Amino acid sequence: MESKRVMATYLVETPHALERAAQAIAGEQSTGTFTAVPGETESLKERYGARLERVTALDEVRQPSLPGAKVPPSHNGVYTRGEVVVSFPLHNFGPSIPNLMAAVAGNLFELRELSGLRLMDLELPEEFAERYPGPRFGIEGTRRLTGVEGRPIIGTIVKPSVGLGAEELGALVYELALSGLDFIKDDELNADPPYFPLREKVETVMKAINRASDRTGKRVMYAFNITGDIGDLRRNHDTVVQAGGSCVMVSINSIGLAGLAYLNGFSEVPIHGHRNQWGMLTRHGLLGMSFTAYQKLCRLAGADHLHVNGLSSKFYESDESVVRSVQNCMKPLLGGYGTMPVLSSGQWAGTAEITYERTRTVDVMHLAGGGILAHPEGPAAGVESMKQGWEAAVRGIPSGQFAMTHLALKQAIDKFTK
Amino acid sequence: MESKRVMATYLVETPHALERAAQAIAGEQSTGTFTAVPGETESLKERYGARLERVTALDEVRQPSLPGAKVPPSHNGVYTRGEVVVSFPLHNFGPSIPNLMAAVAGNLFELRELSGLRLMDLELPEEFAERYPGPRFGIEGTRRLTGVEGRPIIGTIVKPSVGLGAEELGALVYELALSGLDFIKDDELNADPPYFPLREKVETVMKAINRASDRTGKRVMYAFNITGDIGDLRRNHDTVVQAGGSCVMVSINSIGLAGLAYLNGFSEVPIHGHRNQWGMLTRHGLLGMSFTAYQKLCRLAGADHLHVNGLSSKFYESDESVVRSVQNCMKPLLGGYGTMPVLSSGQWAGTAEITYERTRTVDVMHLAGGGILAHPEGPAAGVESMKQGWEAAVRGIPSGQFAMTHLALKQAIDKFTK
Repeated sequence: MESKRVMATYLVETPHALERAAQAIAGEQSTGTFTAVPGETESLKERYGARLERVTALDEVRQPSLPGAKVPPSHNGVYTRGEVVVSFPLHNFGPSIPNLMAAVAGNLFELRELSGLRLMDLELPEEFAERYPGPRFGIEGTRRLTGVEGRPIIGTIVKPSVGLGAEELGALVYELALSGLDFIKDDELNADPPYFPLREKVETVMKAINRASDRTGKRVMYAFNITGDIGDLRRNHDTVVQAGGSCVMVSINSIGLAGLAYLNGFSEVPIHGHRNQWGMLTRHGLLGMSFTAYQKLCRLAGADHLHVNGLSSKFYESDESVVRSVQNCMKPLLGGYGTMPVLSSGQWAGTAEITYERTRTVDVMHLAGGGILAHPEGPAAGVESMKQGWEAAVRGIPSGQFAMTHLALKQAIDKFTK
Repeated sequence: MESKRVMATYLVETPHALERAAQAIAGEQSTGTFTAVPGETESLKERYGARLERVTALDEVRQPSLPGAKVPPSHNGVYTRGEVVVSFPLHNFGPSIPNLMAAVAGNLFELRELSGLRLMDLELPEEFAERYPGPRFGIEGTRRLTGVEGRPIIGTIVKPSVGLGAEELGALVYELALSGLDFIKDDELNADPPYFPLREKVETVMKAINRASDRTGKRVMYAFNITGDIGDLRRNHDTVVQAGGSCVMVSINSIGLAGLAYLNGFSEVPIHGHRNQWGMLTRHGLLGMSFTAYQKLCRLAGADHLHVNGLSSKFYESDESVVRSVQNCMKPLLGGYGTMPVLSSGQWAGTAEITYERTRTVDVMHLAGGGILAHPEGPAAGVESMKQGWEAAVRGIPSGQFAMTHLALKQAIDKFTK
């Protein structure tokens, strides 16, 4: 019986004929080596070989995007770009994310037949769904736990991101919890620091949250950054859950997709997936991976929430790219694997308008650090301004106009656009 | 008391003044956010802030290396490159590789103040040595287990890399084990495939190895690729060790540094570290990470063997870069953490000469797949040719000359240089 196949789509740049470069990809990643070896029979190649499915020429350039491509003697100075689809028999590696990566990425980025390579997309057979349960909470579970419907989950990040002691953090979280926020997270720079270990941080934060909820009846969700070595993940998770915490956060690229899948195997609360270090893998357009491929892997491995940057952010990424990321997260994967996109970085009330205009969804987490904490009237007004920003956006009222009758929004605009 | 500090060296490219870009790096990765927030006091910044240690201007270019940098209104069209050293207080994250990565890499690659960023080196305080025991075998332990002294460990990779069944693999390993090889490894594409599960593969391979060692008295080391999800690592390791196997292999970037450190916590045999997917992180010179930084992390996490490509390889990497990688691996890290560099890719007897000439060491593993398996007189002659190639190299005799009196080497030269 023919094995099911994984389809991988690449953006390729090469000084060779595109077809030849595509064959190099398929050969390297299955039965081949640099010279013919005994045993590499036609029937073995047929059954186990990667297969070139489609080659589509795109544009041509005169400068190689990456160093080290070996140009053929007849080279005319042109580097051809194209989209290449290669399929891999699933029975070569089975539904295993770590071994999938060795096949679809592996040594390909080092091939000297290529002057550019980017993994653009992956199509995975349903066997992956049997192996990886994926997010247990996603959008629906997060809404249930936070009690927020019909609008984004409004959140903030503890700032300053490092350096707060128990007293300051307790006071800050208490104030934030009273402010009407739905969600607070640790910064990715703050996990389990020696000066204030996670165990004590959890105790301090949960005390503040409980104290506030006694007054308001609302219990803010706090994503404790439990990033650490594999053994830390279970211990830290248990520390959070036993204290009544309702969310854990990890730096996905620090613990690896394997670490994420491991955590997802036992986590009793949503996993807030931070993608720091992702820039390394994606910022150059002819290298690494697109978010389209990456988010599928993160969802499969169990990220209930997944960072996508924000519109008008402080980072290099274009708004168009961020919008595409949100849309990617919304598309069902193997029939499900819902994750909640997290908009963050340079966000404040005024970014709600463009965010909704471009994405047309409220099923996002919208996080503002300074945008809430540095609101001139304090965090409660910061939260209020975010809600007003979203109300205006969803109702299609320009935020400047809405601000005329909504003070918190007006104050935010005055402060953050001056 | 002042905290110990991690020193990170970056290659930076920016449309701004270099100093300003460097400040953006230090700010983003410690106490800052996009706007001043309450609580970010001077004493907090002093105690927890990242600190700019040194800024050295290098050259200037007219084209940004990476997209998305925001040029200042006054921009004169020049992008400045420089070396920037930033230090981070250890007490912000402690001796934890996953949290170290969030600090020294984190969101930095996404900063729009930069048009290029590469992590070049890391200096770590000794607290990391207390937390991570590192390789338990390294060069010495691998020599002990293989019984090889005074020359490289000669090895091969099972090829075809995928598709062999029990019968073919058993026969191949038996032949290879008789051939005088020191080391055999699975290909990174072949771990625990559904068509031939690891458990059965281990049984098949160990039977062949034992049968051969009954005849020769020598027991070849076989690196079983145990790459998989976190739960698989322990199970697979135990399968190998219980069957008498003496080495396990992992795709480091598939299981993550955290996965590697986890495996190292219990592995009873050397860990053969394959770096596939590394190209994604390093091929562009103004993005990602240099091998100098990466190999420190891999050694800390416990790689007893570490792939470095080979000289005259089939990949894009220059020989100069490969030589530097070997030299990097040789330098003590925190007083130890020895790893054995693994030369691989397009290797055969003829690459010994340049390898020794450039590295002046025999403390390497030298792996040839096709270079041994496709030797015209078979694998035993392939192995013999590798040993002859190294003998000539170490004795300073040109391999062409040595080949006149050494048939296996001559046959290899005839085949692989035609």
